[in-house]
Amino acid sequence: MHISPEIEALIARLARLPGLGPRSARRAALALLQEPESRLRPLIGAMQEAARNIHTCPKCGNLDSLSPCTICADTQRDPTVICVVENVGDLWALERSGVHRGRYQVLGGVLSALSGFGPDDLNLTGLLEQVQAGEVKEVILALGATVEGATTAHWLQEKLSSYDVPVSRLGHGVPIGGALDVLDEGTLAAALSSRRAL
Amino acid sequence: MHISPEIEALIARLARLPGLGPRSARRAALALLQEPESRLRPLIGAMQEAARNIHTCPKCGNLDSLSPCTICADTQRDPTVICVVENVGDLWALERSGVHRGRYQVLGGVLSALSGFGPDDLNLTGLLEQVQAGEVKEVILALGATVEGATTAHWLQEKLSSYDVPVSRLGHGVPIGGALDVLDEGTLAAALSSRRAL
Repeated sequence: MHISPEIEALIARLARLPGLGPRSARRAALALLQEPESRLRPLIGAMQEAARNIHTCPKCGNLDSLSPCTICADTQRDPTVICVVENVGDLWALERSGVHRGRYQVLGGVLSALSGFGPDDLNLTGLLEQVQAGEVKEVILALGATVEGATTAHWLQEKLSSYDVPVSRLGHGVPIGGALDVLDEGTLAAALSSRRAL
Repeated sequence: MHISPEIEALIARLARLPGLGPRSARRAALALLQEPESRLRPLIGAMQEAARNIHTCPKCGNLDSLSPCTICADTQRDPTVICVVENVGDLWALERSGVHRGRYQVLGGVLSALSGFGPDDLNLTGLLEQVQAGEVKEVILALGATVEGATTAHWLQEKLSSYDVPVSRLGHGVPIGGALDVLDEGTLAAALSSRRAL
């Protein structure tokens, strides 16, 4: 079968994206190549813009073009309530629910023996600095109800117990075994407003 | 909700790819942004390579880095049998089957009143030149068994009838591995009328 190496390489790269298998990667590559001016070049442009401008916020771990990020820099938001999430997708999901008016801490992962993600890999700097400075009135652990999420929540609770800061977790509404970023806004809003002190 | 415009633009561009909706585009964008060096930049590179090197073959309409394309330039392939397909995806599908050892003509679409795709939009130049030069022994119409595919096949058959060239179409029938009770009546009728003595 004759497919030129450039097209093969493009298909292989696209097939690595979540949600795209080999077959849909082929369809996507064809769609791009058949309309290079209206599809391929604009997508390259959007990716270059993102690669050039989007950085990880040094304070909370969010992805944004500003540093610190728009949420950390927003004086309308309560800096004393920090919501701890696993990744930026979970942050986006919570932002879509529109209930949390405080700030975030993006861990970048959850504790997992299987994937070798340990306590030192958690992005905690911003959170710990603020807690140590006595600036925080509440830490909300908004982690998925998975084994890894629960382990991480437990570990964080221990870690934070030496400081005088209330720690809560999301309330009922998070389905067991469910990931945050696939939940609807209503469930997330309910889970947030029914959070409980630990 | 705070998502920076660069990320929004990237998600919007990704969501236009076939097979990706708004939700999977968001997941894909995040995966790219969270690993810019190992995912985003290599994908940009693969796209730039493809945009720079891949062109439409002036002879048959295939996408390739060579001009004419690898298939048109392959002297091992029979230049007297031309298989007419709607798009490059269909060409790839036929190449995967490995049965056709001739060349192709990629129409770039099929006749459709709805989408305003008319006879002048069909890429026929290479085919007609070769037919007029008397170089072709068979034209195989490998078009989809849809209303538009059948209309296009009929129109092409008329168009080619003024030249002394045999025209065939793909056989209709039961797909290999397919169960009878899930097939539509049209396919079963076609399979029955194209039955073969054993």
